[in-house]
Amino acid sequence: MGLFSKDIKTMNDLFVHTLRDIYYAENQIVKSLPEMIEKASDPQLKQAFQSHLDETKTQVKRLEQVFRMHGAEVGGVDCPAIDGIIEEADDVAGEVADKQVLNAALAAAAQAVEHYEISRYGTLIAWAKQLGRNDCATVLQKNLDEEKAADKKLTAIAETRLNLKAAS
Amino acid sequence: MGLFSKDIKTMNDLFVHTLRDIYYAENQIVKSLPEMIEKASDPQLKQAFQSHLDETKTQVKRLEQVFRMHGAEVGGVDCPAIDGIIEEADDVAGEVADKQVLNAALAAAAQAVEHYEISRYGTLIAWAKQLGRNDCATVLQKNLDEEKAADKKLTAIAETRLNLKAAS
Repeated sequence: MGLFSKDIKTMNDLFVHTLRDIYYAENQIVKSLPEMIEKASDPQLKQAFQSHLDETKTQVKRLEQVFRMHGAEVGGVDCPAIDGIIEEADDVAGEVADKQVLNAALAAAAQAVEHYEISRYGTLIAWAKQLGRNDCATVLQKNLDEEKAADKKLTAIAETRLNLKAAS
Repeated sequence: MGLFSKDIKTMNDLFVHTLRDIYYAENQIVKSLPEMIEKASDPQLKQAFQSHLDETKTQVKRLEQVFRMHGAEVGGVDCPAIDGIIEEADDVAGEVADKQVLNAALAAAAQAVEHYEISRYGTLIAWAKQLGRNDCATVLQKNLDEEKAADKKLTAIAETRLNLKAAS
């Protein structure tokens, strides 16, 4: 990003910029999930993280498809938001002594990540439609649907397994 | 936070830690919203930010009430997630040349903030219930309801006013 220039002039520029933001974010998530999988001791949580890692790799490919459809160069921009969310997850995980409490903390951290993505995809889909790119919106919708499903799955695991065990 | 100690031993410790995280976040939002109000040129967006600033001040007070109800000291912990989300909002806003595009970018940035809070309050409410603190959950639910309403309001403003104008 050019911090001393006004590089975003049109809605199209803003759309491409935000696409680069989520592209960077998804790639950071691909890098972070293996550590979360390793730290999780609850088998259902571990499995949920593993299947979301596979999904996230597909989501990265879908974003590359959107870049190509829109005629924009594939690439990321720094995304301090996802860096901060991941840093916080690492910090908290590093402070938790008990295994069950750690599972609850990991699930909550992953839900913060999901919500960041839900917000970004919601925005990108609205902008794609406004720009007349319903084709891009359709591809982005697949990623949004997966993020929402992942968030719901984590809520279900946390409420039925993790918190009960950790609070007992 | 004690980076080299394992300070979080129980679900109660994790609950209080996360309460401090969102307390810090809400206070940072109180500091950031005035600049967003100033930058927004769309009157409905400006008004939405102003009314959310008033709401956020009440939310801070509700969190202080939860600390007291739970017998925990009122205070914040560093929250790299919200710092990152706000930093990113500032970076993007600084790069946008056009007023209408800036309004769309500001609304999207605010929605990223809302989603972080939605995620944190959802987690805190689940944990409060598990810890037998339905009284705390009820107060936290008020904040969650307001965040969800603020997010919906921003979606409506963006879809009916901002993006159309900015894309035209």
